[in-house]
Amino acid sequence: VRVREVLFFPSRVTCVEGLLAAAREDGGKGLRLAPCLCSLPHEESELSRLLARLLSARRSLELCIFAFSCPQLSCAILLLQRRGVRVRVVTDADYMAVKGSQIGILRKAGIQVRHDQESGYMHHKFAIIDKRLLLTGSLNWTTQAIQHNRENVMIVEDAKYVKLFLEEFERLWEDYNPV
Amino acid sequence: VRVREVLFFPSRVTCVEGLLAAAREDGGKGLRLAPCLCSLPHEESELSRLLARLLSARRSLELCIFAFSCPQLSCAILLLQRRGVRVRVVTDADYMAVKGSQIGILRKAGIQVRHDQESGYMHHKFAIIDKRLLLTGSLNWTTQAIQHNRENVMIVEDAKYVKLFLEEFERLWEDYNPV
Ligand SMILES: [Zn+2]
Ligand SMILES: [Zn+2]
Repeated sequence: VRVREVLFFPSRVTCVEGLLAAAREDGGKGLRLAPCLCSLPHEESELSRLLARLLSARRSLELCIFAFSCPQLSCAILLLQRRGVRVRVVTDADYMAVKGSQIGILRKAGIQVRHDQESGYMHHKFAIIDKRLLLTGSLNWTTQAIQHNRENVMIVEDAKYVKLFLEEFERLWEDYNPV
Repeated sequence: VRVREVLFFPSRVTCVEGLLAAAREDGGKGLRLAPCLCSLPHEESELSRLLARLLSARRSLELCIFAFSCPQLSCAILLLQRRGVRVRVVTDADYMAVKGSQIGILRKAGIQVRHDQESGYMHHKFAIIDKRLLLTGSLNWTTQAIQHNRENVMIVEDAKYVKLFLEEFERLWEDYNPV
């Protein structure tokens, strides 16, 4: 059955360290992780469900995001890159310069990032996982939006929509080629 | 066949007066309209396709939009209201106060509008037509976004997604009830 799901934000604030730690230890099968002792609830939330979808990537991630400052989502992207997933990021030049943006951190880790060079905003907020699953909606990847705003992220497993968004990604990737 | 389509912006700037005039004359079947003499191209564009979808509403429109300043889209909503379509609008209190917002105009025409009363933004950008067709994406309904930004609007005719977004609309409609 194809995934048809929508995450509605704001998300409760929950601990996602266990999720990230498990993804980090992906190689060490069966390794038992010590439980996290922090004071946040250790339950599912919209953020943990979004993270779990992202961490399911095995081959490729195309990310097209206007604003990116959420440290946990950044951590997930770095994990994917280390796991050998081909990660490409398109973002907006103006937001990139904002304090708290994670884009510099992704670049330092060797992730390919391209940004717009035009007056309008690169305002998309979508990700494509393994050329198979599309995450798209109103949500920028900021802690403010995740914890406080009314937002949506659709999760779409439909070849036609995936193809249309992939084509848009490739158009932007070429348009924003710095050479 | 179910509609599965994505509009990618920016849109070329085209004249949509013919589209709006034809919708205005909806009652006067077969009435021949004089061609528009303005200097803009009289062709299809992303904006005209978005307008045509909206103008297809016959019974109901739920609109949940962060920023709304585009006069042509506002004109379409007023036409729907006059045609007897039940229009309900949810929006963000902060953007409502911005110069150029169309929300005051909709209210003056008798359209029901509710807004958030919380610190986070009501950041959704979706519309549901006749409880059957969902339009959702990154696009705010502003001329800036339509003409200059990289944006997407998915057009989704899928009962499950429509149901999920309608439920979110009804949640907001109740949460933002002023009484
Ligand atoms: Zn914890
Ligand atoms: Zn014209």
